[in-house]
Amino acid sequence: MAVRFAQRMNEMKASEIREILKLTQRPEVISFAGGLPAPETFPTEELAAVTARVLAESGAHALQYSTTEGYPPLRRWIAAHMNATLGTATAADDILITSGSQQGLDLTGKVLLDDGDVVLCESPTYLGAINALRAYRPRFVEVPTDDDGMIPGELDAILDHEPRAKVIYVIPDFQNPTGRTWSLARRHALIETARRRQVPVVEDCPYAEVRFEGVSLPAIKSLDEDGLVVFLGTFSKIFCPGMRIGWVAAARPLLEKYVLAKQGADLQTATLAQMQVARYLQDYDLAANIERARALYGARRATMIRALEREMPDGVRFTRPAGGLFLWVELPESVDARELLLACIERNVAFVPGGPFFPNRGHENTMRLNFSSMPPARIEEGVRRLGAVLREFLGRAEHGSPRRCSAAVAG
Amino acid sequence: MAVRFAQRMNEMKASEIREILKLTQRPEVISFAGGLPAPETFPTEELAAVTARVLAESGAHALQYSTTEGYPPLRRWIAAHMNATLGTATAADDILITSGSQQGLDLTGKVLLDDGDVVLCESPTYLGAINALRAYRPRFVEVPTDDDGMIPGELDAILDHEPRAKVIYVIPDFQNPTGRTWSLARRHALIETARRRQVPVVEDCPYAEVRFEGVSLPAIKSLDEDGLVVFLGTFSKIFCPGMRIGWVAAARPLLEKYVLAKQGADLQTATLAQMQVARYLQDYDLAANIERARALYGARRATMIRALEREMPDGVRFTRPAGGLFLWVELPESVDARELLLACIERNVAFVPGGPFFPNRGHENTMRLNFSSMPPARIEEGVRRLGAVLREFLGRAEHGSPRRCSAAVAG
Repeated sequence: MAVRFAQRMNEMKASEIREILKLTQRPEVISFAGGLPAPETFPTEELAAVTARVLAESGAHALQYSTTEGYPPLRRWIAAHMNATLGTATAADDILITSGSQQGLDLTGKVLLDDGDVVLCESPTYLGAINALRAYRPRFVEVPTDDDGMIPGELDAILDHEPRAKVIYVIPDFQNPTGRTWSLARRHALIETARRRQVPVVEDCPYAEVRFEGVSLPAIKSLDEDGLVVFLGTFSKIFCPGMRIGWVAAARPLLEKYVLAKQGADLQTATLAQMQVARYLQDYDLAANIERARALYGARRATMIRALEREMPDGVRFTRPAGGLFLWVELPESVDARELLLACIERNVAFVPGGPFFPNRGHENTMRLNFSSMPPARIEEGVRRLGAVLREFLGRAEHGSPRRCSAAVAG
Repeated sequence: MAVRFAQRMNEMKASEIREILKLTQRPEVISFAGGLPAPETFPTEELAAVTARVLAESGAHALQYSTTEGYPPLRRWIAAHMNATLGTATAADDILITSGSQQGLDLTGKVLLDDGDVVLCESPTYLGAINALRAYRPRFVEVPTDDDGMIPGELDAILDHEPRAKVIYVIPDFQNPTGRTWSLARRHALIETARRRQVPVVEDCPYAEVRFEGVSLPAIKSLDEDGLVVFLGTFSKIFCPGMRIGWVAAARPLLEKYVLAKQGADLQTATLAQMQVARYLQDYDLAANIERARALYGARRATMIRALEREMPDGVRFTRPAGGLFLWVELPESVDARELLLACIERNVAFVPGGPFFPNRGHENTMRLNFSSMPPARIEEGVRRLGAVLREFLGRAEHGSPRRCSAAVAG
């Protein structure tokens, strides 16, 4: 077969790390790799009850085609919820229901990006966003980022000489992969820059409600008076990911383009799933469910941080997120996290090396740890093993025989 | 706001016909416009039962993230079903579960098309495919098509001078919009051409099982020995459309690219929906459900054909499909179906004008009628009104005052 694929497929390669991580799905592996919410937080029984109600009362509607924009009661709930929790002024008509917020990223590429356009992103940024947007063949420019978010002067300097900058992509709350949260001043600075330059901002916001401590900060969308912020939301981290219900909230001129793009991409998100979620939100208390997730993940984060403080050798730094699912580790420069992963898998512990979260590569001495999906005892044991392998690596490096990255993990 | 959209958005305009048809959702309108399956065929109670079982037995799995490729038992069922009903030799690993077969069309564009590549299609072809593929900015070349399918000599002549031909898109069974079915000889001729030219074929097959009479023909996929046919399947017409479960079946080198493209597009199709469908297929008899749809739609088609024979003036031709959901009407040259639609809406009857099904336009004297969603008495009344409006139009045309298409429906 000599099929000629589109050029974009040259850049969309299977992640070798993903292939390696497939090996870690054995139950004996302590995995800090995925971004899985804890199934203990899923409202399984409630969902069975609402499904029975939806199908009994509106089965013909629930199983039929429906509009691209989404199920009106769900759009209304989301708009009201955003306004109450994030300080936005969103109307139901500003909402497009998507198949998870990942689809919001793909539609962003479709709506905004021509070949060679520039995406400005945090450094590092969400791997799934890199993968979604790469299909539209942009150039990624990483904006220097510290613990408070993108550095405004750096963003401005980049925009000065990037006339093809088409979108600024940010995850301001408990970022994936670092766990960082933008300060209020940085949020204001970003919206001011976007306004002055008329460049849209995509605010990816899956974790904001999973906060363990401190007070919530206003969404960047809530500071937007020019209709320049596209907000991506999802029920994956506060309800469950397996139903794939997310949303785009944007001003009408932008949203209309997203609706057109979604119409071509998959017509609509499943009617039944939208009605199941909407009915759950009507009949049960999502806030109580979120509270359970917060308590559970907050305790697991504390366990992981205590274990890292105890087990990590000198020269290792890590973030202490106030929410979300991940923390970020910087290892001594001599350690390649891909090699470390291979050695760790032999001890039945897994994580994601940090390099792939930098679209222009480098930073191979970093890694992302998930703390939401493993119970505390396994977190402690996993971090203990990780520390032991790392100390072996550092010992070898000191003795002048660094283990080099093999071809099998170079991707 | 001065957001610069991607160039592709210039071609992706809101369909004005779609906007007009939104006006026809009032219950008093007799609509032959949509492609809606009859809700009487939806297994509503069975779905409530299987949902309860899935959530009770595997709730933590059903609501969690899962693989991009899809739920293994569902992939196995689909492969076995295709092999039994369509004569293919498909393995479970050749299947990717998608969000309806519309997503299979979008992924086709992503995997195969660069700007300016050529898509060969039937004339007319499915409007949703035109919309999905247009996002990848191809040129559409309509291959002359008769009642037996694409004309092989014409296809070959086009391929001789279209070096950028990247995909041949066909709907061989009860085509949308015409209701036509390809002969066996034409299926063989197509696969022979694809093999000789090494151009992939996308076989879109949503209706093959909804056959009212005659015997099934082998899928083009079943004749493919070179792994060149990408088969798009769906549960929308044989089970229900509101769960958005479709699939791509393709040889591994092609399927791997579709999997990568889907990973970026939306990570995966909903785990719960896949498990609901798989459990329904395990616990209940899909064949009996299909049989109900066949009987219902076959009777409605017969009603519509009898009514058309009775009500249509001379010079009107229409197809008599042996299955599917649609038939196709050619009006006298003087009649513009968009104008006819506006006049029909005033009498509370609706259809889709045929022009948009030709990617390079023209053929404004055609229309698509759906016969699956209206009960027989409303079909008879709707065709009666359609005939009356049409006779008025023809009368006016004879008397030299043709009503011209207004700007409002020119899109």
